Amino acid sequence: MKAEILAVGTELLMGQIANTNAQYISSRLPDAGIGVYFHDVVGDNPERLRQSFQLAMSRSDVIILTGGLGPTRDDITKEIVSEVLGRKLVPDQESLDKLDEFFRKRNKKMTQNNLKQAYFPEGCTIIRNSNGTAPGCIIEDSGKTIVLLPGPPSELKPMFEETVMPYLASKSEYRLESVYVRIFGIGEAEVEDRLLDLIDGQTNPTIAPYAKDGEVMLRITVRYPNEGTGTDLIGPVVEEIRKRLGDSVYSTDNSSLGEVAAKLLMEKKMTVSLAESCTGGLLAAKLTDFPGISEVFDRAAVTYSNRAKVEELGVRQETLEKYGAVSEQTATEMAVGIKNVSGTDIGISVTGIAGPGGGTTEKPVGLVYAALAHRDGVIVKRLSLMGDRAKIRNLTCLHVFDMIRRYLLGIGN
Amino acid sequence: MKAEILAVGTELLMGQIANTNAQYISSRLPDAGIGVYFHDVVGDNPERLRQSFQLAMSRSDVIILTGGLGPTRDDITKEIVSEVLGRKLVPDQESLDKLDEFFRKRNKKMTQNNLKQAYFPEGCTIIRNSNGTAPGCIIEDSGKTIVLLPGPPSELKPMFEETVMPYLASKSEYRLESVYVRIFGIGEAEVEDRLLDLIDGQTNPTIAPYAKDGEVMLRITVRYPNEGTGTDLIGPVVEEIRKRLGDSVYSTDNSSLGEVAAKLLMEKKMTVSLAESCTGGLLAAKLTDFPGISEVFDRAAVTYSNRAKVEELGVRQETLEKYGAVSEQTATEMAVGIKNVSGTDIGISVTGIAGPGGGTTEKPVGLVYAALAHRDGVIVKRLSLMGDRAKIRNLTCLHVFDMIRRYLLGIGN
Repeated sequence: MKAEILAVGTELLMGQIANTNAQYISSRLPDAGIGVYFHDVVGDNPERLRQSFQLAMSRSDVIILTGGLGPTRDDITKEIVSEVLGRKLVPDQESLDKLDEFFRKRNKKMTQNNLKQAYFPEGCTIIRNSNGTAPGCIIEDSGKTIVLLPGPPSELKPMFEETVMPYLASKSEYRLESVYVRIFGIGEAEVEDRLLDLIDGQTNPTIAPYAKDGEVMLRITVRYPNEGTGTDLIGPVVEEIRKRLGDSVYSTDNSSLGEVAAKLLMEKKMTVSLAESCTGGLLAAKLTDFPGISEVFDRAAVTYSNRAKVEELGVRQETLEKYGAVSEQTATEMAVGIKNVSGTDIGISVTGIAGPGGGTTEKPVGLVYAALAHRDGVIVKRLSLMGDRAKIRNLTCLHVFDMIRRYLLGIGN
Repeated sequence: MKAEILAVGTELLMGQIANTNAQYISSRLPDAGIGVYFHDVVGDNPERLRQSFQLAMSRSDVIILTGGLGPTRDDITKEIVSEVLGRKLVPDQESLDKLDEFFRKRNKKMTQNNLKQAYFPEGCTIIRNSNGTAPGCIIEDSGKTIVLLPGPPSELKPMFEETVMPYLASKSEYRLESVYVRIFGIGEAEVEDRLLDLIDGQTNPTIAPYAKDGEVMLRITVRYPNEGTGTDLIGPVVEEIRKRLGDSVYSTDNSSLGEVAAKLLMEKKMTVSLAESCTGGLLAAKLTDFPGISEVFDRAAVTYSNRAKVEELGVRQETLEKYGAVSEQTATEMAVGIKNVSGTDIGISVTGIAGPGGGTTEKPVGLVYAALAHRDGVIVKRLSLMGDRAKIRNLTCLHVFDMIRRYLLGIGN
């Protein structure tokens, strides 16, 4: 089956956002056995949307339209699709009720144009939206499957995963299954170098490496009939990769490094507290992304000022004066301090220079110390990170998550 | 002039990367007076590229193709474009010399397929590439301008800026300028409702609303002659919008709400500290995204456990027992507590239920209290937010930034 993704939205043509919805959907459809052949973007313009949709209908089996389902008059996707397919737009009672409830809960008046979101092409299957007011829908017409999804990624993704993927997979003759081997601590070139014969020699599964946000990922993809399974082909390949890359492989189920660290903390019931300086709360924010973490996460102190480091964590004034806030010594006292204050099993600290200002020859932007205080001592890591403020802060979090993982698995930092 | 951006590359259709080249070019072309009407993506497939390029030639004045200029057999853009336009590919001596030099410098043997990069459609203008081996080119044909650029953004961007933008601007008769009016606290439908006559009545500038991540944005775009200016046409429209939407308009220079809050804190030299529960450090992380914030941001206490709320902030045990951790009373004591502990001008707290678990009928997922303690008292807001954990946490941050903005501007919450 050939799929085409048609995004509707002038904001894409103005360059305000990139078409990440097309990227996301494209990365997922192969798992349903569907190949993507075209992406298109048109603005909120009836004539051009009509032409593009007609073209997509003439050349693709599955057409996924994103955007243009909102309440305003600019939102024309349902209207144009219905018109081209010769279907009426009819009201859906459940959607009307939900809209009503949405506005009542907020004590807000529902304006007339909101009602538009409760109208759908006759005969379609409605896709409920638990994160916004605009539902989507699936239409079967002339042997083609047409899917309409709202533009905001936080609404589109769950609707796509929960409804669209299973729907499309059930229609396909074969499937693709991918396993992601995620690696931290070695670069992409070295990973490829160590696996070159495997990457070149494999046809099913295939192995594709790529680097992303400071880590390396290998996608191992197997193709198999709809009724069968591909797992037995993937397993040995993953094993061989593990053998060659060792404990730099941190997950094979597509868990992120933060997730691995959070899960280990929860599994081992190790309570944790954080003392952050340059990451400014980002580490705590990432850790508390995971529901259930409250069982082990006690608190974080974001101590931006030196005074806060002294008052909240008991860092000694003389340590700050002698070695500076960004030093092994301060990192150590911060980690021990937060551990003692909170009474948790481990205490973790981060202090560094995220830039763009604040760097010196001796202590350049990107210099970060991270420490992990535990029952028997303190592990300190000195990091020299490259990139802008956001990248340095993100990389720091990855390194800390890797410290937690290595400490809890006893594999050494 | 109507432009279309046609990207060539299977990696885009596999979802490995987003089409950020199209976004970049789209954000720049209006400054040359050119509107973008379509984006397309096709894989490295001759037949489909031929069709898409022919379609672009039939409907657009400027066609910018990105990608597919490299040395491998997958790279087919020049070949297909030449074929469709009926032009021969001819060698360019300067490009041959440069390739030769490139490989000599690196002590590498140039393989035969590299030579392909020195061949161009007859009669074109070559765009030199100082950051890679594949040059681009500009072709004038049948009254259309066709531009070929390499895919890697680090090569494409300088070539686009140095050669393509000046070339296109000199051909254009007018320019576009956009101002973004950003709004928080009223929904997209209501914004449109209040501005309907303006949106319908305006042709220059045009007004387009859209919703994004919990806020609403209006894009006001003016079209003006190449030699003139559009500012005097935009100003009165922005003023009228401000009049109708009042202090829900938080910026007209495309600053985010967080940026507006951070800048106000810095401008007014108001020191601030945070006490976070359900946002788990996200608020501090977002605030410390802005360099220079360390001048006013003292510290944050991420008090996930009740014990931490008592120990770090002085929340009374009886308050927690009587009203619960998610209550107006606890939020108030948290805000006052962090303000007193840190000695800052204002103290801000957040406590709520981000989900997915932890909700009850009385206190459902999405219930959040935010408080701002200042010299003369405390402002508390009760929020009922919809969405998943990430969305609730993000929306909470927006509401807090708006509280800060309103407090510092004295416009009431």
